[in-house]
Amino acid sequence: MIVRDRPSALRLFLLLRGSVLPTILPSLTLNMFVATLVTISHGDLFRLKITLTPIPFSLIGLALAIFLGFRNNAAYDRYWEARKLWGELVHRSRSLARQCQTLIALPEDLPVRTDLQDVRTRIVHRAIAFAYALKHQLRDTSTADAEAELRPHLLQSELEQVSSKYNRPDFLLLRMGKDLQACVQAGRIDPCLAATVDDTLSAMAAAAAACERIKGTPIPFSYTLLLHRTAYLYCFLLPFGLVDSIGFMTPFVVGIVAYTFFGLDALGDEIEEPFGTEANDLPLDAICRTIEINMRESLGETNLPQPLTPVNYCLS
Amino acid sequence: MIVRDRPSALRLFLLLRGSVLPTILPSLTLNMFVATLVTISHGDLFRLKITLTPIPFSLIGLALAIFLGFRNNAAYDRYWEARKLWGELVHRSRSLARQCQTLIALPEDLPVRTDLQDVRTRIVHRAIAFAYALKHQLRDTSTADAEAELRPHLLQSELEQVSSKYNRPDFLLLRMGKDLQACVQAGRIDPCLAATVDDTLSAMAAAAAACERIKGTPIPFSYTLLLHRTAYLYCFLLPFGLVDSIGFMTPFVVGIVAYTFFGLDALGDEIEEPFGTEANDLPLDAICRTIEINMRESLGETNLPQPLTPVNYCLS
Amino acid sequence: MIVRDRPSALRLFLLLRGSVLPTILPSLTLNMFVATLVTISHGDLFRLKITLTPIPFSLIGLALAIFLGFRNNAAYDRYWEARKLWGELVHRSRSLARQCQTLIALPEDLPVRTDLQDVRTRIVHRAIAFAYALKHQLRDTSTADAEAELRPHLLQSELEQVSSKYNRPDFLLLRMGKDLQACVQAGRIDPCLAATVDDTLSAMAAAAAACERIKGTPIPFSYTLLLHRTAYLYCFLLPFGLVDSIGFMTPFVVGIVAYTFFGLDALGDEIEEPFGTEANDLPLDAICRTIEINMRESLGETNLPQPLTPVNYCLS
Amino acid sequence: MIVRDRPSALRLFLLLRGSVLPTILPSLTLNMFVATLVTISHGDLFRLKITLTPIPFSLIGLALAIFLGFRNNAAYDRYWEARKLWGELVHRSRSLARQCQTLIALPEDLPVRTDLQDVRTRIVHRAIAFAYALKHQLRDTSTADAEAELRPHLLQSELEQVSSKYNRPDFLLLRMGKDLQACVQAGRIDPCLAATVDDTLSAMAAAAAACERIKGTPIPFSYTLLLHRTAYLYCFLLPFGLVDSIGFMTPFVVGIVAYTFFGLDALGDEIEEPFGTEANDLPLDAICRTIEINMRESLGETNLPQPLTPVNYCLS
Amino acid sequence: MIVRDRPSALRLFLLLRGSVLPTILPSLTLNMFVATLVTISHGDLFRLKITLTPIPFSLIGLALAIFLGFRNNAAYDRYWEARKLWGELVHRSRSLARQCQTLIALPEDLPVRTDLQDVRTRIVHRAIAFAYALKHQLRDTSTADAEAELRPHLLQSELEQVSSKYNRPDFLLLRMGKDLQACVQAGRIDPCLAATVDDTLSAMAAAAAACERIKGTPIPFSYTLLLHRTAYLYCFLLPFGLVDSIGFMTPFVVGIVAYTFFGLDALGDEIEEPFGTEANDLPLDAICRTIEINMRESLGETNLPQPLTPVNYCLS
Repeated sequence: MIVRDRPSALRLFLLLRGSVLPTILPSLTLNMFVATLVTISHGDLFRLKITLTPIPFSLIGLALAIFLGFRNNAAYDRYWEARKLWGELVHRSRSLARQCQTLIALPEDLPVRTDLQDVRTRIVHRAIAFAYALKHQLRDTSTADAEAELRPHLLQSELEQVSSKYNRPDFLLLRMGKDLQACVQAGRIDPCLAATVDDTLSAMAAAAAACERIKGTPIPFSYTLLLHRTAYLYCFLLPFGLVDSIGFMTPFVVGIVAYTFFGLDALGDEIEEPFGTEANDLPLDAICRTIEINMRESLGETNLPQPLTPVNYCLS
Repeated sequence: MIVRDRPSALRLFLLLRGSVLPTILPSLTLNMFVATLVTISHGDLFRLKITLTPIPFSLIGLALAIFLGFRNNAAYDRYWEARKLWGELVHRSRSLARQCQTLIALPEDLPVRTDLQDVRTRIVHRAIAFAYALKHQLRDTSTADAEAELRPHLLQSELEQVSSKYNRPDFLLLRMGKDLQACVQAGRIDPCLAATVDDTLSAMAAAAAACERIKGTPIPFSYTLLLHRTAYLYCFLLPFGLVDSIGFMTPFVVGIVAYTFFGLDALGDEIEEPFGTEANDLPLDAICRTIEINMRESLGETNLPQPLTPVNYCLS
Repeated sequence: MIVRDRPSALRLFLLLRGSVLPTILPSLTLNMFVATLVTISHGDLFRLKITLTPIPFSLIGLALAIFLGFRNNAAYDRYWEARKLWGELVHRSRSLARQCQTLIALPEDLPVRTDLQDVRTRIVHRAIAFAYALKHQLRDTSTADAEAELRPHLLQSELEQVSSKYNRPDFLLLRMGKDLQACVQAGRIDPCLAATVDDTLSAMAAAAAACERIKGTPIPFSYTLLLHRTAYLYCFLLPFGLVDSIGFMTPFVVGIVAYTFFGLDALGDEIEEPFGTEANDLPLDAICRTIEINMRESLGETNLPQPLTPVNYCLS
Repeated sequence: MIVRDRPSALRLFLLLRGSVLPTILPSLTLNMFVATLVTISHGDLFRLKITLTPIPFSLIGLALAIFLGFRNNAAYDRYWEARKLWGELVHRSRSLARQCQTLIALPEDLPVRTDLQDVRTRIVHRAIAFAYALKHQLRDTSTADAEAELRPHLLQSELEQVSSKYNRPDFLLLRMGKDLQACVQAGRIDPCLAATVDDTLSAMAAAAAACERIKGTPIPFSYTLLLHRTAYLYCFLLPFGLVDSIGFMTPFVVGIVAYTFFGLDALGDEIEEPFGTEANDLPLDAICRTIEINMRESLGETNLPQPLTPVNYCLS
Repeated sequence: MIVRDRPSALRLFLLLRGSVLPTILPSLTLNMFVATLVTISHGDLFRLKITLTPIPFSLIGLALAIFLGFRNNAAYDRYWEARKLWGELVHRSRSLARQCQTLIALPEDLPVRTDLQDVRTRIVHRAIAFAYALKHQLRDTSTADAEAELRPHLLQSELEQVSSKYNRPDFLLLRMGKDLQACVQAGRIDPCLAATVDDTLSAMAAAAAACERIKGTPIPFSYTLLLHRTAYLYCFLLPFGLVDSIGFMTPFVVGIVAYTFFGLDALGDEIEEPFGTEANDLPLDAICRTIEINMRESLGETNLPQPLTPVNYCLS
C-alpha cells in the first residue's frame, strides 16, 4: 500500500512509484505509435481512407463507460471488503485477548504461568499465529516461510501438526476451541461466557472464509474480456476518428485517452486481487504486526516489536 | 467459473472460452448483415431514404445506458451475493465442526467412536451432506445424482428418508437439531452452548433460504423485455444513422456497438442465474469439495479427497 | 411475478404479457400523434415556427437521466428488499419449526399429540398463519379472505380473537410467546434455549415491520412529480427539436424515446409497491405455500399441498 | 409525507401540494427573466456580444451531473435510513411488549394489576413514551408539547424527572432497565431471558442514537456550496449559450432546465433532514401513533386511539 | 464540521468559510492565467496553432467523470462510515452505562459509593475516557493533551498505566473487562448478563478498530494519481479546445470547469480523512462531549458540562 501525502501539482507528473504507467507502457506506446502513423497518412490505411468521425466513439464510449465504471466499482469493493475483513480480524483478536484474560478464571490450585503452558497465554498467541497463517495462505507462500512466522507463537508439537494441514487457520481455531472446552470442563469459565468466546472464534473463522472467497472468486472473466476488447478497439480506432478534426494533435489526445482507459483497467486488475504483494495491495505484513503488538501488550509483555513503517512510501 | 490469468493483448481477441461471442453470434451476424445492406443502398429502404442522423441515437442511448447499467449491476449483485452465501456456508460448516468437537463432551460411559454412530461425527458428515443436497436442489439434478453424493455421509436409513423430502437440506438440519437435543438431554452439552450450536444451524438455514430466493426470483421480466427491445431497435436502426457520415465503415462500427450491447446483455443473462453449470456460473462442485475436505480434516480423517482444479480453465 | 425463459429475438417484440406497453399506451399514442402533427406542419405551431434544435434535449436529458436512474434504483431496491424480507420469513419459519421440535422437550407425563393441542404443533401452525396473515395485511384483503386461509392453522377460539385485532401477525407472535412461556415454566425448555426461540420470534416481527415500512412509505411524492413532469415535457417537445434534421422519421424516433422513458417510469411505479397483485409483483401466494409445505413437512405430515406453479407465465 | 396515487397526466402539471415549485419560484422567475432579457438583446451584454455556445454547457454539465447525482443519492439514503430506524423502533417496541408479557412471570404473591403499578404494563407504556420523547427531541419541540404527549404513559414522578433531563429517551431506557433488574432480583425472569430483553433495550438505544446522528450531521456543507454555485452559474449563463441556436424559445428551455436543476436541489434540501414537519418529511406523528396502538393492543387495552390519516394528502 | 443554514442565493457566492476555494486558488489562478494567454494568442503556442476542438474533451471527459464520481463516492462513504462508527460509540457507551447500573447488583455488605471506587461508576467513567483516548489516537495528538482529557475520568494509577500503552483505548477495555470479571466472581452479576456486557465492550472495540482502519488505509494512491493527472491535463488543455468557438469567454468558462473539477477533487481529499481538524472533518470534540454528558447524567451527576456549540459556524 502506498502511503504518502498528495504531491504538489508538478511532482504529480513525475512520479512513477504507485503509478500504473509502467504496467501499461507497452500498450500505450504501441497505441501512440499507431496514432502517429495514422496522422502521417491522414487516416488512410493502404491508400484506403478510413471514413471514421468522432460520432461512433461517442456511441461506443457509452458502453465503455458502463463497463469501466462497473468493473472499477466491483474491484474497489473487493479491495475495501478485504480491508474490512482484516480490520475485523484485528478487532476480534483484541476481543479474544480481553475475553481470555477476563472471562477465564485463574486456576485455583496451579501456579500462574505466563508462557504457552498457560491456557490464556496460549490462546492469545494462537490468535497471533492465526493471523500469520491466514496471511501466508492468502499469499500462497512456502511452508517454510509460514513456519518461520508461526514458530514463536506455537508449541513445537502444534507447529508440526499445523504444517501438515490443508487449512491451517481453521486448525488453530479448533485448537483454541479445545482449550476453551477444557476450561469449561474445569469450571474455569461459565458456559454462558464460553458461548461468547466461541462466538469470537466463529467470527474469526468467518473473516478467514470471506478472505478465501475474495481470493478464490475473481470478477467473472467474461467481463474482463469484454472490457479489454472494447477498450482496445476503441483506443486503436480512435486516431482514424480524430485525425480529420484535430490533425497533428491526434497522437497526443489518443495518448491521454488511452492512458486513462488502460490505466483504469490496469488499476482494476491490481486492486481486484488485494492480497498480493504489489504496490497497491493491502499491507498484510503491517496488519499482522499490529495484531501481534496488540495481543502481546494485552498479555503485559514489554519486549514488543515495532510497528512496520513504509519503505520508499510503500507499506508491505 | 473461468479461472485464468489475463491473456496478452493479442490473445485477448482470439479467445472464445469464457467469451459471450458464441451466444450472441446469430444476432450479431444478422445485425452486421443488415448494416451491410444499408451501406450498399446508402440508407434507402425500398427506394425511400430513411432520414436518420446520429442525434436520435445519442438521445435513445441515454435511456439505454440507464437500462444496461442498472441490469448489469443487479445481475452482478445476485452473482456476488450467491457467492457470499456459499462462503457463509463454508464458514458455518467449519464452525459447526469446531463446535461439535469442542462444545459437546465425550460420552462418559460409552466407548469413543469415530464413525457415523458417534453424534459428533454424524453431525459433521451431515453438514457435508447439507452442502451437497443444497447444490443439487439449486441445480435441479436428479434424485439419483444427489443420492450418489449424499450416500457416503449419511446412514442408510437417513438417506432413504431424505430422498423423499420436498426440502432435503432443511430435513438434514432438523436431524442435526435432534442429535443436538439428545446431547442436551444427556447432559453432554450445556444449554447455553447448545444455543450457540443452534445459531449455527439457523445460519445454515438462512444461507440455504437465501440461495433459494436468488434461484426463484429473477430480475423482473419487464426490465429484461424493455432492455432487449430497446437494444435491438437501437442496433438495427443504427446503420441508417451512421451511413451518411461514415460510409463503408458502417457495418464495422455497428458490429462493435452491437458486440458490446448484446454482449453485456448476454453476460447479464448468464450471471443473473449463478447456480447453473455454464462457464461463468459459480463453482459449486469445487466449493462443496472444499467443505468436505475441511470437515473431514477437522475430524482427523486423513484419506481426504483432492480439491477440484480447473479443467480447460473452467472450475465447475 | 413473470416466470419465463427469455423469448427469441422475434417473439420479443410480440409479447404483451409482462410488458408495460398496455399501461403506457395512451400517453405513447398521444405523443406519437403530436409528433405526426409536428412533422406535417414542419414544426410550426399556429404558423409560428418553434425554433428548437436537438441541443436543449441533450442538456435536459442530463437531468432526466439522473432522475430516471435514481428512481429506478430506488424502486428496485424496495422490490428486492421486500423479496429478501419474505426470504427471511421462509428461513425464520423453518428455524422456528426446527427449534420447536428439537429444543422443547416432550411432556413427560402427557401423551404425545400431533394436533393443535400439542404446543409444538401449535406454534408451527401459527407460524404458517403468521405468513398468511401478513400477506393479507400487506394486500389489504377482506377479513373473510384472511380468515379462510388462517382457519386450518388456528384453534377456533384463536381465530376469533385474531380477526378482531388491528395487527394480526403481531398478535400471533404474542400467542407463540405465551406458549413458549408455558414451556419455560413447565421446565420443558431451558431459559437459554428459550432465549434463542424468542430471538426467532423477534426476527419474524422485524421482517413484518419492515414489510409494513415498505408498504407505508412510498418514494417521496415530489420525486415522482418532478420526474413525470420532466419526462412529459421532454417527450412532447422532442418532435420540434428533431423534425428539422430527421423529417418524416420524427414520430418513429419520438415513439422509441417515449417508449423507453414512459416504460421505465411505469415499471418503476409497478415495482415500487411490490406487495400488490400485478404481473410484476412478488408471488406472495407461492411463498406462503412454500412456508406451509416446509412447516408441515417438518412436522412429519404427509398430505402436503402442491407448490404453486405459474399460470400463463405468471406466479401469483 | 405526501400520500396520494399518481395523478393523471394533465393534473400532474397543475399540482402544487408536494411540489417543490413554490420553494424555487423566486430563483426560477429571476432566471427566466434574465433569459428573456438575453433573448431580446440577442446575447449582448452592454453591447458586448457574449460568445458562448452550447459546448461549454455540455462540459460543465458533466461535473454538475456528478454533483447532483451524488447529493441526491446521499440525501435519499439519509431519508430512507431514517425511515428504517423508525421501522426498527416499531419492531423493537412490539418485541419488547411481547417479551414483557411472555418472559416476565406474574408475581406469585401479588394481585395482578394492569395499570402503571404493574411492571409489565409500566415498561410497555414507557416504550410508547420513548417513541414520543424521541420524536420531540428530533423535532426540537418545547418541553410543554413533549410533556403533553408523555403524560398518559408515565407516572407523575417519572414525568417530572424526565423533563429535566438532557437526553430524555435514554433516561426512559434506564428506567426500564431498572425495572428489569428488579424482576431479575425478584426471580420473575431468568437472567438468560433478561439478557434478551436487555438486547431489545440496547437496540432501541441504537435506533435513537442513529436518528440523532442523522439530525446532527448534515451532508458536508462544502458539497452544498459547490453544487449551488455550479448550478446557479450554469443556469444563469445558459441563455447566452442557447440564444443563437434556438432564439425566442430560450427562456422556455432555460426555464425547464432550471426547474429540474433547482427542483432536484431543493428536493435534496428537504429530504436531507427527514425529521422536520415539511410536506416531504417522515410522518413521525403517525408512526408514534402506530406504536401506541400496537403496544396498548398487546396489553389487551380496548379503547385504542385511531391511526392517523392523511390530511389534504399529507400525513404528519 | 460546518453547521449553518443554506445561505441566500447571493451570499452563496461570497462565502469563503467551508468553501474549498482557498485550497484550490493557486491551481485555479494558474489555469485561468494560461487560458488568458491562449485566448490572446488565439490558440497558438510559439506560433504553432494547437489544433484542438471540443471533441477530444467530450471523450476524455467520459473517463474523468468515471474517476471523479467513483472517488467522490468512496470519499464520502469513508466520511459517513466514520460518522456512523462514532454514533455507534455514542450508543454503546449509553448502553454500557445502562447495563452497569441495572445488571450489576449493588454490593450487599459495602456502603454505596458514587466515586471511582465504585465499580459501576468506574466503568462508566472509563467509557468516557475510552472516547477521549480514541479521539486523541485518531488525531495523533500529544500524550500531554490526551492525559489532560483523560485525567478526570481515571484513577491516578490507571492514568499512568494508560499513557505508556501502544493502544490506549484497548487497554481501557481490558480494565473494564477485569472489573466485570470481579463482579462475576463476587456474584454481583449473572454470567448470562455479563456476556451481554462483554458484547458491549466488544462492540466498542469493533468501532475503534474500524476507525483505525479508515485512518490507516487511504483510497489507493494510484487512483488519486490517475485522477489528478487526468484532471490537470484536461483543464490546462481545455483553452485550446474552446478558444476557436467561444473566443474571449474562454478563460471564464475554463475557470468554471476548473473550479468544479479541482473543487470536487479537493473536497474528496478533505472528506477522505474525516478524523482531522479541518472545517469539513467530523466534530469529534463535540461527540466526545455528548458522550461525557450522557454518561454522567446517567450516573445522576448534576454538574454537567455544556454541549459544544459551533464557533463561527464550525463545530470542532
